[in-house]
Amino acid sequence: MVIVLKNGATKKQIDELMSWLTRFDVKTNLVEGVHSNIIGLIGDTTQIDMESVQAKEIVETVKRVQEPYKNANRRFHPEDTVIEVRGRKIGGGTLNVIAGPCSVETEEQTISTAIAVKEAGATMLRGGAFKPRTSPYSFQGLGKEGIEILKKARDITGLPIVTEIMELTDLDLFEDVDVIQVGARNSQNFTLLKALGRCDKPILLKRGLAGTLQETLMSAEYIMSEGNTKVIICERGIRTYETATRNTLDLSAVPLLKQKSHLPVTVDPSHATGIASLVEPLSLGAVAVGCDALEIEVHNDPKNAWSDGAQSLTPVQFAETMKKIKAMAEFCGRPLDVCE
Amino acid sequence: MVIVLKNGATKKQIDELMSWLTRFDVKTNLVEGVHSNIIGLIGDTTQIDMESVQAKEIVETVKRVQEPYKNANRRFHPEDTVIEVRGRKIGGGTLNVIAGPCSVETEEQTISTAIAVKEAGATMLRGGAFKPRTSPYSFQGLGKEGIEILKKARDITGLPIVTEIMELTDLDLFEDVDVIQVGARNSQNFTLLKALGRCDKPILLKRGLAGTLQETLMSAEYIMSEGNTKVIICERGIRTYETATRNTLDLSAVPLLKQKSHLPVTVDPSHATGIASLVEPLSLGAVAVGCDALEIEVHNDPKNAWSDGAQSLTPVQFAETMKKIKAMAEFCGRPLDVCE
Amino acid sequence: MVIVLKNGATKKQIDELMSWLTRFDVKTNLVEGVHSNIIGLIGDTTQIDMESVQAKEIVETVKRVQEPYKNANRRFHPEDTVIEVRGRKIGGGTLNVIAGPCSVETEEQTISTAIAVKEAGATMLRGGAFKPRTSPYSFQGLGKEGIEILKKARDITGLPIVTEIMELTDLDLFEDVDVIQVGARNSQNFTLLKALGRCDKPILLKRGLAGTLQETLMSAEYIMSEGNTKVIICERGIRTYETATRNTLDLSAVPLLKQKSHLPVTVDPSHATGIASLVEPLSLGAVAVGCDALEIEVHNDPKNAWSDGAQSLTPVQFAETMKKIKAMAEFCGRPLDVCE
Amino acid sequence: MVIVLKNGATKKQIDELMSWLTRFDVKTNLVEGVHSNIIGLIGDTTQIDMESVQAKEIVETVKRVQEPYKNANRRFHPEDTVIEVRGRKIGGGTLNVIAGPCSVETEEQTISTAIAVKEAGATMLRGGAFKPRTSPYSFQGLGKEGIEILKKARDITGLPIVTEIMELTDLDLFEDVDVIQVGARNSQNFTLLKALGRCDKPILLKRGLAGTLQETLMSAEYIMSEGNTKVIICERGIRTYETATRNTLDLSAVPLLKQKSHLPVTVDPSHATGIASLVEPLSLGAVAVGCDALEIEVHNDPKNAWSDGAQSLTPVQFAETMKKIKAMAEFCGRPLDVCE
Repeated sequence: MVIVLKNGATKKQIDELMSWLTRFDVKTNLVEGVHSNIIGLIGDTTQIDMESVQAKEIVETVKRVQEPYKNANRRFHPEDTVIEVRGRKIGGGTLNVIAGPCSVETEEQTISTAIAVKEAGATMLRGGAFKPRTSPYSFQGLGKEGIEILKKARDITGLPIVTEIMELTDLDLFEDVDVIQVGARNSQNFTLLKALGRCDKPILLKRGLAGTLQETLMSAEYIMSEGNTKVIICERGIRTYETATRNTLDLSAVPLLKQKSHLPVTVDPSHATGIASLVEPLSLGAVAVGCDALEIEVHNDPKNAWSDGAQSLTPVQFAETMKKIKAMAEFCGRPLDVCE
Repeated sequence: MVIVLKNGATKKQIDELMSWLTRFDVKTNLVEGVHSNIIGLIGDTTQIDMESVQAKEIVETVKRVQEPYKNANRRFHPEDTVIEVRGRKIGGGTLNVIAGPCSVETEEQTISTAIAVKEAGATMLRGGAFKPRTSPYSFQGLGKEGIEILKKARDITGLPIVTEIMELTDLDLFEDVDVIQVGARNSQNFTLLKALGRCDKPILLKRGLAGTLQETLMSAEYIMSEGNTKVIICERGIRTYETATRNTLDLSAVPLLKQKSHLPVTVDPSHATGIASLVEPLSLGAVAVGCDALEIEVHNDPKNAWSDGAQSLTPVQFAETMKKIKAMAEFCGRPLDVCE
Repeated sequence: MVIVLKNGATKKQIDELMSWLTRFDVKTNLVEGVHSNIIGLIGDTTQIDMESVQAKEIVETVKRVQEPYKNANRRFHPEDTVIEVRGRKIGGGTLNVIAGPCSVETEEQTISTAIAVKEAGATMLRGGAFKPRTSPYSFQGLGKEGIEILKKARDITGLPIVTEIMELTDLDLFEDVDVIQVGARNSQNFTLLKALGRCDKPILLKRGLAGTLQETLMSAEYIMSEGNTKVIICERGIRTYETATRNTLDLSAVPLLKQKSHLPVTVDPSHATGIASLVEPLSLGAVAVGCDALEIEVHNDPKNAWSDGAQSLTPVQFAETMKKIKAMAEFCGRPLDVCE
Repeated sequence: MVIVLKNGATKKQIDELMSWLTRFDVKTNLVEGVHSNIIGLIGDTTQIDMESVQAKEIVETVKRVQEPYKNANRRFHPEDTVIEVRGRKIGGGTLNVIAGPCSVETEEQTISTAIAVKEAGATMLRGGAFKPRTSPYSFQGLGKEGIEILKKARDITGLPIVTEIMELTDLDLFEDVDVIQVGARNSQNFTLLKALGRCDKPILLKRGLAGTLQETLMSAEYIMSEGNTKVIICERGIRTYETATRNTLDLSAVPLLKQKSHLPVTVDPSHATGIASLVEPLSLGAVAVGCDALEIEVHNDPKNAWSDGAQSLTPVQFAETMKKIKAMAEFCGRPLDVCE
């Protein structure tokens, strides 16, 4: 951490600040200049709140040199984290494809879609039981019943299930779910993140609507700081001024997250673009930049889907896309995951 | 709602779509052109999910003509909503100033700040007991104890208290709070919003970090659709590419929200800018554009604040600023609110 | 400037970097830590290219402590710059109002609008002769003829004229113009800026569509570094994800620019919002936050305007708005400018 | 085009508007509803200015159904445009790689880099002679001399040269350049675009810093409307709130531009990310999503580069990256272009 002091800070003020800093377990160095002085802090600065430092009267600016996250940091955990989910391994050098409908609507719809995505090569099943919808007048999900339907689909297909939690009081309902998803709108619901940090379940954490990569890793840190290290980060597009796509998919996030963190990274081209015809090219692009998993929306009848129909693939389209994804995954040296 | 059909849609497909639309209580009109056809929908379209329409095979684009919110819509509720809080009236043609520390840290700090802001003319007290912090290693708030301290401060000063809820399981702790705040990070925590909709308490709803005005009004609609109509919208800056300020304060939101909705609008220049020296000019600007209330951070000792010190005013600075705010409020014809 | 070195930089590499830095006229200080080393640079660092430093093999990050602009910097020029335009003074503690049509369409339209805005109290006349339009099929402006019409309007009303240049080969045509405007789309047309820096005319420089405040001041610096110090900065809204307004007006830019620079600041609420009904409240807000001038679009017949009609005021609306602007300007202690 | 009329528009007003619309060669249809009326316009609406329509008193909103560009539109030109450059074909089903230094600094640096990129498989040479730099105190490029050096490099390596124009008065200097680049900051310099539209040279048009895809295609339309149809669009990252990368590379732009337009699309991962270690993964991603060309910065000595060193690859790194790009290009069925 580097603290730049204001022009005109007195010796006494500087001494007070230096002495205040001794409460943290760091070494301080003062560089005296003509116009301003600089204090360099060396050591573990993750416990120091930048805001507290910034608020000091004589402080011009503060800059972190090291990242403010520790558990999620590759620097302190150089090997890739591999997360096991019913025999699949996310982050272990293979590609997982999590496919299924945006919302669980009916048993028939979910099971027929699950069978179709399984046949096409998907390795996990996604489906929303609790749905965060912008309008209170839109379909809000089947809730508990939706989770029961997903479990039936798992029984039939063997695919592990991934589904979203919206509220920590619902946590008991997720006991038999394989991967709990935290949606973009809850990516900084810190109370929920801490509760999930006390679970022993993989958490698929989506980047916020306008979340920075650092904030996303800090949200992962919230979960990890409570003990649960099984976190999968999901890039799902960010909000920008561009309206041609629903969000702007930030594929540079994938290699950057993998440089900075050891956690597996998944990409959701369906929500990122909102346009079915863009899902295939961006899935291929995501594999090429190095993602560990893809999350793709498939619906047995998109034109009658209760949500997100415009971005969902039909089973036939998905099967075509999966052929190309498989080939690309093999070409990139991270073939589709197979259950052992 | 206007539905533009794809070039090449067959008569049969169009008939099917027209017939599907009859399930909603709207009148449809088909305009036939050479290259494309248009269906105009007349009536209450708030119950129609645009995504469902967009997903139909023959639909090129859909455009809403009317807003998707009803309870929050000035069109259906032309008079301003006035919200009473212990004798103050938010939205009734006066200005309220909600001041206090970012976080409740100690009884001494909170009470001395409360007395100071009261003396300077503030009409309500703010203070965070539950704090949404980016880092799990930062101070997370005193929780229940913080609320107790706020109540003591209210007993001493008579100022109604405004404090943030982060999790619906904490709702019981807010029973004796005057205004419940929903922070920017929870502005689309729909489960929480619905629960607050079943309360009989004013809700101060902050715009999301990257929330559109329409989304903000839809979040208000979530609360209102459950019965609670006492919603105050808060503009607190949005996330943009500009890094000179913490967020970009969008003052055009104030007159625009007041055109589109009857709900009172408050502005938080402290979080919006993150810079204490900008709080005064932007408070004056906010009054000039027509806000009903201001939310300002004041700390008895900002340089030792546990959070947000850089954007907090000292009691002396706040008293100076309040003089100007009072004068501006009177000039603008909406004088500082007085308890009756 | 603070240079943070990578963990593992050798003594030899550090010495080389320190020696390379001696070419600039700055003092260097090395702080040695356990995990990383820091070099502090003291002196005039505006000539040092951060990119060149960042590219050095052993450099982790570089941070500027001082601003990269000098001529535009209030630190080196504490008094406000006052720019005289035919007897008006921009930046001298009064408010100027620059009003007129988006485009010069006809002599009749321009002159009738000019007379109307003069009567309502405007202090300068704006009007576009060269129009940057998104579509090549839209009206591109009358060019030279437009400038001639503006001069006639000036002869009749006495109002100084402000009009936009798009291309430096047109510079001769602006010889008799009072203030040359550089539009948002040309705010980083550095060749044009340098050419204008060799003129002896006030330049009204608009912030770029997505320009940071620092970039805007650097564009001012381009003009000033060539000798022309008569630069007026214009906040005209920035591009964000919000679609309810044409751009997002950033009123915090006004006090911030005035803290960082001595140059006068003007605000254009017409282009910022794109909505006529928002022009009045945001004009009042802009005056309240401390702007030196306003730029407002007025058209004698907005509903038949060839460009920007939806954001233009009618002469009657403008006269009403001017009454409030005048009162607000007086209240704020910076009354409307009068020609001496 | 769909025009939604305001509630309360009179028969007379509607008739006037309908009659005004007859001046354009389109068919109008009025749909009468209870609360509002809709006019559907069928035909070629590219000549209708949406702003003029929006400004009409009785118009609530206007929505385009068809794109406002014609020459660049795939709808009217279904086959891919293929642009020949000294035997290479951009857009013809192969991949071109345009590599070289950010700036031409010296003959030695440019030629040695050119030889290196040629050997590694690059198909064209890039290098900046005129450099748009944020600071007037940074290196501004060698200008004419830089172009001469590029030509020498072409003579030696046979690689066609791509270099940026900043000002139309310099156009003569580009007579012997193979591809003229328009930088992001000039992407809406409409005067320059029109002048380039009268050239018979391929133009590589970069997307603006905050340009939408539609605006980018409208800028292409500016060039094409003057007769020059040889336009290559370049995605180079957009400005967002994320600061971890220099810009946010929008790879969904590639398939979307190719759906909407017949023009070839190139991607510049160097400027998009600003980080050398991200260039390789994003180059592979760009090929996977279907780009026709890549533009990559290579410098014989990045740590001493005069600009953009942090994002430049060394010749050795570039050679390694090219091996992977070649393999990926072949895998994707669009192998590296070879000069015939």
